[in-house]
This record gives sequence, C-alpha cells and structure tokens, in this order.
Amino acid sequence: MQKKDFESALKVNQGIEQPPAINPYLKNFYKKNRVKLLSEDEYVEGITSGNTSILSQAITLVESSKSDHRAMAQKIITRSIPHAVKSMRIGITGVPGAGKSTFIEAFGSLITNKGHKLAVLAIDPSSEKSKGSILGDKTRMETLCNDPNAFIRPSPSSGSLGGVAQKTRESIILCEAAGYDVIFIETVGVGQSETTVHSMCDFFLLLMLAGAGDELQGIKRGIMEMSDLIAITKADGNNKDKATLAKALYKNALHLFPPTESGWVPTALSTSSVTKLGLEEVLEKITEYFDMAHKSGYYLHKRREQSRFWMYETIQEELKEHFFENEIVKNSILDYESKVLHGEISSFAAATKLMDLYKSQI
Amino acid sequence: MQKKDFESALKVNQGIEQPPAINPYLKNFYKKNRVKLLSEDEYVEGITSGNTSILSQAITLVESSKSDHRAMAQKIITRSIPHAVKSMRIGITGVPGAGKSTFIEAFGSLITNKGHKLAVLAIDPSSEKSKGSILGDKTRMETLCNDPNAFIRPSPSSGSLGGVAQKTRESIILCEAAGYDVIFIETVGVGQSETTVHSMCDFFLLLMLAGAGDELQGIKRGIMEMSDLIAITKADGNNKDKATLAKALYKNALHLFPPTESGWVPTALSTSSVTKLGLEEVLEKITEYFDMAHKSGYYLHKRREQSRFWMYETIQEELKEHFFENEIVKNSILDYESKVLHGEISSFAAATKLMDLYKSQI
Repeated sequence: MQKKDFESALKVNQGIEQPPAINPYLKNFYKKNRVKLLSEDEYVEGITSGNTSILSQAITLVESSKSDHRAMAQKIITRSIPHAVKSMRIGITGVPGAGKSTFIEAFGSLITNKGHKLAVLAIDPSSEKSKGSILGDKTRMETLCNDPNAFIRPSPSSGSLGGVAQKTRESIILCEAAGYDVIFIETVGVGQSETTVHSMCDFFLLLMLAGAGDELQGIKRGIMEMSDLIAITKADGNNKDKATLAKALYKNALHLFPPTESGWVPTALSTSSVTKLGLEEVLEKITEYFDMAHKSGYYLHKRREQSRFWMYETIQEELKEHFFENEIVKNSILDYESKVLHGEISSFAAATKLMDLYKSQI
Repeated sequence: MQKKDFESALKVNQGIEQPPAINPYLKNFYKKNRVKLLSEDEYVEGITSGNTSILSQAITLVESSKSDHRAMAQKIITRSIPHAVKSMRIGITGVPGAGKSTFIEAFGSLITNKGHKLAVLAIDPSSEKSKGSILGDKTRMETLCNDPNAFIRPSPSSGSLGGVAQKTRESIILCEAAGYDVIFIETVGVGQSETTVHSMCDFFLLLMLAGAGDELQGIKRGIMEMSDLIAITKADGNNKDKATLAKALYKNALHLFPPTESGWVPTALSTSSVTKLGLEEVLEKITEYFDMAHKSGYYLHKRREQSRFWMYETIQEELKEHFFENEIVKNSILDYESKVLHGEISSFAAATKLMDLYKSQI
C-alpha cells in the first residue's frame, strides 16, 4: 500500500475524510482498521500518559460531527483540563512564500532538541477545498514527523471558522494534557483566521519576506500590529543583505505602533531555515516574552480573558447557527439582503424584520 | 437663561438627558418647549428640504428607547434612503491630545467654505459617564456650531457600542437625505469604537502627534493599519520640525503594510489647525481617494458590503440581547463564567450548557 493511500485511509478512519467509494482494496482496509471507541477512562489515561495514538483518536472525537462523539469529547476535555501542562501557545502566520512549513520544521526541531515536547496544530477553514495542502505540509515536515517529541495534526477539514477554531482550542487542551509544553498554532493566512489564532495563543509570530512586494497581498492589514515578533525568513545566500535591511525597516516601523497590552515591545529578526540563522534568537525572544508575562501576571490574565472570550464567542456562534438554520429565516434572508443591497430598506429594518420572523418561530 | 442651561434643556427635550429635578425654572421650560411628534410626512418633508430643526428631532427619534419613537424612526429612514445624497463618510479618530475638536473645527470650516454641507456625528459609548465632554466639544467648535452649512450632533448618550453604532448609522442616512454631502464620524478613541466607525465610513483618518510617547497608549493596536491617511497634528511653532520628521517616519512605515483592499496607498501629512498648514492637502488626498474609489467601483462595493455587514451585525446584536436578557441565563452565566475562569469546565462546555438552558426556555 502506498504511503499516500495509507495516510488518506488513516484520515477516513479518523473521520476527517469520506472514504472514496472506488477502491475496493482501500474499502477493505477501512473496515479492518476502523478505530473503535475506547472508554472515557481509557482516553483520559492514554492522553495523560502521553500515548499519541490515543491523543490522536481523542482529537478525532473532538473533530467529529456525530453528537455521541462530541459528548464523549467534552467529557474527556473536562477531565483533561487539570492535567494540562503550563504551555507556550505560539501562533504562527506568514505571507505566502515565506516558507512557513520549512520554518516550522527547522524551528520546531530546535525546540524539541532543547527537550520540549511540541504539538503543531493548524487552523485553515479553507482546507476543505484544498485537502492536498495538508499532506503536502506533512511531507515538507519530514524531520518533525519522525520526531518522537513532536506531534503534528492537520487542520480539521470542515466547518466554519468558528467551528474549526473551537476544535483547535479543544485539541490544544488535549495536547497539553498529554504533556506537550510548546504548541504551535499555524494559520494558513487568509481572512479572519489570524485574528482567531491571535485569540487562542500567548505569543504571535509573523513570518515576512524581505521586500514589500506582491507577497504582502497575502496577508490582511492589521496582522502586523498584532504580532509580538516579526521574523524575516530566507535570510540566506543572495537574499541575506536584503533580509537584514528588511529587519531594520520593520524594527523601526514597530516603534511607531501603540504599545501592546502586555507591555512587551515587539521586534524583528532575520532568520534562515537553511543556515539556522536567527532561530536561536527567535526562541530567546519567545522565552524572554514568557518570562516577562509570567512575572507580570499577564500570562494568566490573558489566558483567563481568552477562556472568557471563547465562552461568549461560542454562545454567539451557536445563537447564529440556531438563527440561520431556521427554515423561515433561510427562506427570507436572501430577499432581505437583496433589498438592503438595493437600498429599498435599511440594514436595521431588515434585521428587525428577520428577527421578528425568527421570534415568531421559536 | 444661561447658554449652558439652554443647551442642557435642549438635550432633555431631545430625550438625550433626564431633566434635573432641582431647578423649577428649567422644569417649566421643559414643559413649555417639549417637542411634540410630527407626522411621518412632516418629518420626511422637513428632512429632505434641509430643515435642521426637524432633522434634529428625527435623530432624537432614532436615538429614543421608546418603541413608538423607534417605529416612526424606521419609517422615516426607509423613506429617506432614496433622497440620500452621494456623500463622503469620513471616520476621524486620534490619540488623546491630538486636538481632534480643533482639527474638526478648522478642517470642517475649510470644507463648508468650499460649498459642502457638513454633518459631524460621534460615536462614544462611554459618553454616558462623561456627559460633560459633549458640551465641551461643542464649545470648542464654535465656528462650526454657528456655520449654517454645518450640523453637529453629539453622540447618543447611552447604550452598548452596537446600539450606539446602529443609531449613528441611521443618523447618517437622515443627514444625507437632508443634503449633507460630507459626514464626519468622530470616535472618542477607546476600545472597539474605531473598528465600528471603520465599518461605517468610506475613508478613515487618523490624527497623530509627533513622537511615539505616552500618547500612543490612547489608541488600540490595529488602528494604524486601518487608516487611509495619517495626519500629524500641531505642526506649528516649536513643534513644526518634529511633526515634519514624524510625517516622514509614518510615511515609511506605511509602505511596509500590506496593501489596502481598495488599492489606495495610505500616506502621512503634517497639519496645523492654527496655521491651517496641510489642511488643503488633507482635503486633496481625500478627494483623490474618492475619485479613485468612484472610478474603480470600490466606493459602491464597500457601501454595499457595509450594508450587508450591518444587517448581519444587527441580527447578531439582537440575538445576543435576547439571550443575555433571558432570566435563567442571567441567573447562571456568572457561575459558568467563574467555572471557566477557574478551569473547572471548558469554555465550550460552559457555552453548551448555557445554550441548553436558553433553548429550554424559548
């Protein structure tokens, strides 16, 4: 069996993908290897003893759309919270072409070599459309994939950003309960994902290329101002001088920004995933940040604020789902939207009418 | 009767303030001058013929919390939409001390002198606590206050940011129906207000001071990256050279940002509300933006996106209100929040439990 087929089959077993009905050999494989549900205790014990296979299966429950899976997942998470190690949750994003995967591979290996346990999770609400990139990513991270101290999990492959974010946050807790003390949350750079990742990590790392050209198109405005550190990548070969210059430019620009809530002063570094230039410095900066944040109490403060935020955010998501799934709302909303777009009714009048319809139903 | 007393009484009549029960003379004045409701036709005719007194009364209905007032307001707004002139909606914010009021006074006068009709609205969800600042603002804008081509309306003095934003957006439509072709939407620089203003204006102007010192504390990170133009204020006297230097620094920094969705390249200018330095240039830049945005179709595109956004935003606000006003939810939410903050339950489990309680009620 080919590696590709195996990985694909594994995903089906994990509930991530639907089995392709075509290949009878694979069909057989699914049946033979279908993961069966463990007991709640088995999951919790497996996770807290650092069993990656059970961790992986538990995350599959988190990502499942079946209600009994979700219910089991909730129980496992609640019991995992007290076991979660104090971790560094690091959000990583970057402009297209910045070499995110190779950076994570190189920087992640540095981190596991220092004795840390690293989990790499991803948020990519678009991954449903481009499932290929997930496997692509995994093959570009070959060293980490074979590193016993690294756990790599591709983005859940379906659902709204809100849904994906929820699953990722729950997976973070499970990884922490399994002893992973460094968590990378990678975002595949589009739309609102960065803001979402920002609200679930302690530290936000932005990967940039030298030169503010077309590649900047790939990130949204506002990302720079939420970064705690900008790493200029590919500072090697002919590109090294350009990257050093870019570092200086970004450093100056960062000084003009309003201060961060944490009191941290963001800075810029130039790095190379090939020569390993700057990677130690990135880790030093991150360590410095966490020392500062622990000392000032900001670490705990931010974590608590995030927990609160996600409680209210989830409520909001569920309220919206309940509303937009309502049949009468579904049947009328596009009409109202069109009236709003044509200036026949104000946004607020339309919203009020839709709310009245909804309330008459519930 | 003192000017201050009159202004205060006027606010009471407009429903903005509660009458102070102490002064019997004023009490009498309220009775005598209480604004009575006009007919729908009278409002619409008054507004579209540019009668500022009727415009003001209609905005009072928009801001009212009484349901019959709100219903009347909705009718007036729907009928006003077709009369709204093509306007320039300009969001203005700034660091504390940047001299927002004096800038608006000087720049606004320049605009009315060019034959425009200018409406100045404000979003300030905190104004309930600091009512004084509204009158303070008005007295600092004496020229504009007496300018027949300018209409100044303080921020509605109560409600959540969402509520205030909705009222401001409705007021914008009424002002445009009354022929005001330039709308300033001022924000009193805290928290989420800037993001909100950004989603209701065409162009976002940020006022900054030379030197990135303590005053930067006053604005949130992310604001710089949403600005279409940065005006360094107080570029006069001893401060002129510093402001010129700051202009250059900001100009360079802006080049490092990702491009705007509109294709517009934000820049920085230095200005003085005293010597009028740079004010013409600010107007030129804004005019250049609107020429570009009209030509490319971005103006209409953004307006439509904003209308759509506000329809969904309002639905979300109302769903939240319905949820959080529910008695059972009210009684349990703090308990769950505390459990989340103490790590006894995950954010998502808490949200789910609260949603279950809510759904059992509706």
